[in-house]
Amino acid sequence: MYRFKPELRIPGPVPVPSEVSLQMARPVINHRGAVFKERFPAVLSRLQLIFGTKNPVYMITGSGTAGMETAVANLVSPGTPVLCLVGGFFGKRWAELCTAYKAQVHVLEFPWDRGVDPDQVAEFLQQHPEIELIFVVYNESSTAVLNDVQAVAKARGDHQALLVVDAVSALGGAPCEMDAWGLDVVVSAAQKCLMMPPGAAFIALSERARAYLEKCDSSRYYFDLRKYEQFLAKGETPFTPNIHIVFALEETLKMLETEGLDNVYARHALMRDMTRAGIRALGLELLVSDRDASPTLTAVKHPQADEFRQRIRKKYGVEFAGGQGTHAGKVFRIGHMGYATPLDVLTALAVLEVELQKFGQATEAAERVLAAR
Amino acid sequence: MYRFKPELRIPGPVPVPSEVSLQMARPVINHRGAVFKERFPAVLSRLQLIFGTKNPVYMITGSGTAGMETAVANLVSPGTPVLCLVGGFFGKRWAELCTAYKAQVHVLEFPWDRGVDPDQVAEFLQQHPEIELIFVVYNESSTAVLNDVQAVAKARGDHQALLVVDAVSALGGAPCEMDAWGLDVVVSAAQKCLMMPPGAAFIALSERARAYLEKCDSSRYYFDLRKYEQFLAKGETPFTPNIHIVFALEETLKMLETEGLDNVYARHALMRDMTRAGIRALGLELLVSDRDASPTLTAVKHPQADEFRQRIRKKYGVEFAGGQGTHAGKVFRIGHMGYATPLDVLTALAVLEVELQKFGQATEAAERVLAAR
Repeated sequence: MYRFKPELRIPGPVPVPSEVSLQMARPVINHRGAVFKERFPAVLSRLQLIFGTKNPVYMITGSGTAGMETAVANLVSPGTPVLCLVGGFFGKRWAELCTAYKAQVHVLEFPWDRGVDPDQVAEFLQQHPEIELIFVVYNESSTAVLNDVQAVAKARGDHQALLVVDAVSALGGAPCEMDAWGLDVVVSAAQKCLMMPPGAAFIALSERARAYLEKCDSSRYYFDLRKYEQFLAKGETPFTPNIHIVFALEETLKMLETEGLDNVYARHALMRDMTRAGIRALGLELLVSDRDASPTLTAVKHPQADEFRQRIRKKYGVEFAGGQGTHAGKVFRIGHMGYATPLDVLTALAVLEVELQKFGQATEAAERVLAAR
Repeated sequence: MYRFKPELRIPGPVPVPSEVSLQMARPVINHRGAVFKERFPAVLSRLQLIFGTKNPVYMITGSGTAGMETAVANLVSPGTPVLCLVGGFFGKRWAELCTAYKAQVHVLEFPWDRGVDPDQVAEFLQQHPEIELIFVVYNESSTAVLNDVQAVAKARGDHQALLVVDAVSALGGAPCEMDAWGLDVVVSAAQKCLMMPPGAAFIALSERARAYLEKCDSSRYYFDLRKYEQFLAKGETPFTPNIHIVFALEETLKMLETEGLDNVYARHALMRDMTRAGIRALGLELLVSDRDASPTLTAVKHPQADEFRQRIRKKYGVEFAGGQGTHAGKVFRIGHMGYATPLDVLTALAVLEVELQKFGQATEAAERVLAAR
């Protein structure tokens, strides 16, 4: 076998551009010093465009789940009636977090291969005027479904509930118009479409959510957003932050801004369409319909998914992810988010072709999509 | 003015060796993949020697406070009677965390310039057999006091309470014999004596603490140690970790193991003694007596501490930290932990000499300490 280059084609953490990686090796600076205080709020404010909000964005040092828990810890008191929309592993995580915080948890379950149905949400809310919080996942990376969170926000109508969105594997890969769509809380993380190593989460709140959190009675300290708000006013974080993610973020934002956000989203949509065309040309079955398909990853059915993807990793160095939850062992997932291009998609399809001895078939289909765009 | 090299002489985050920094720029790997699963538990187990325990060490992606909250979140239920030993900013943080988790908080206050008094602890415990948890700071970096946690553990006698230790700015700079001394929980973090960038905390538990946490009824998810235990068994973390801290930790452990832990601790003690001799030779007043002095940082009284240290930072690039809490504006703190040597201490003293026009006086005193060691 030839010596391969490792290619991480999982739905995060994603490959990081060298310009960004090198930021991670910079000398440590004082997080209470003048340089940090100047650069930190400046870079966070540039994230507002990607969140689609005029409200501040906060950084929590931790994983994406730390960001999700920040939302729950600041909003859910014991007994708060909440609705979790669950169609995959991360929707389930919202429900688990709300349960851990002793909410009165209602769950609307959706099949693990399609999007949340806004009509069912509207119906449920009509019957449950007491619901105070709705939790939804924008991009359900366990199933490769992109939920229509804008439609969910519309389905809410004038119901009182705040809408809390996990956009961990969506933000920077799919449009997010937090203010315009009426999303109340949006959570994301470093290691997905923002093209950074793992180590930080980001969160923004609507004014209504900001007011609501004052009445929250949960036990919280590290995740207490009032502290983050207070310290951001002086350009700091309440606790020693992942300083290097701040440097890295400056670099990734420069790259995203130079490309232009619309072009970034179009690139992700193109990678989605190329991947799906290629997979179909190989005679493999896609887990999700075109309507609900994620722009940041694609799930493919395979009877021996784990053996298949492990073989590919060992032979060619291309690493796909396995299935999660009910799909474990029956699905593999191809990540095409963040620092990924149509040529990376062709490489991913090429190893599938070689392994299946369907030489050129997937790349041909995908190249036609690319050429027509 | 000449062009200076920035010198971070604060009590963390500390300068990071290039060998370690470069690990932070490595390509991202899959945290659910074979390479991570092999390397992660191997490197964590090497931390056991520094903690002085045969029990597992867990890594939490977050700051030192995230590590402290992990201890509290897994041990404190609403109403749990706890005792917090407070002689500085971080002792106070224990009390704040316990209050946030709705414990029944008892506080023993000690002056913010000396160590915790084990006799008072013993007396308090005798009067309060109901106390279930004692929280103490090993190295109180706000005051530069090293608390004698071994004596506190002894003072506990056969009282039931578990002893929880914040060793964030001590571990790797002062000996820690968790099992031998009877410490039940020890918390530390990456960015102090372990010479890494900020972004991860570490925690270990005695068997008694491990059994105790089963009955804890707090709201927790990201900090739930049962999840970390379960995932460490397969070489993983429950949530996407700061992968690069794992690479960095391999490198710092190699450095610490090569130097030898006893030599590492002796180097810190030497830097402490050199700094104190130098400060005295300058006619400045030390905040803390020799008996209670920290080996990882030194606090110096100065009537215009903030102006003084800012002037030094701007003129020479050497950055000291300000005072915290009651000492704000009246004390500056010199960090000498982690990737720091006696020569760094001489540089720090030299800028004080120049600024105070006491040429050569502090370095002479410090060099005599160095030569005699």
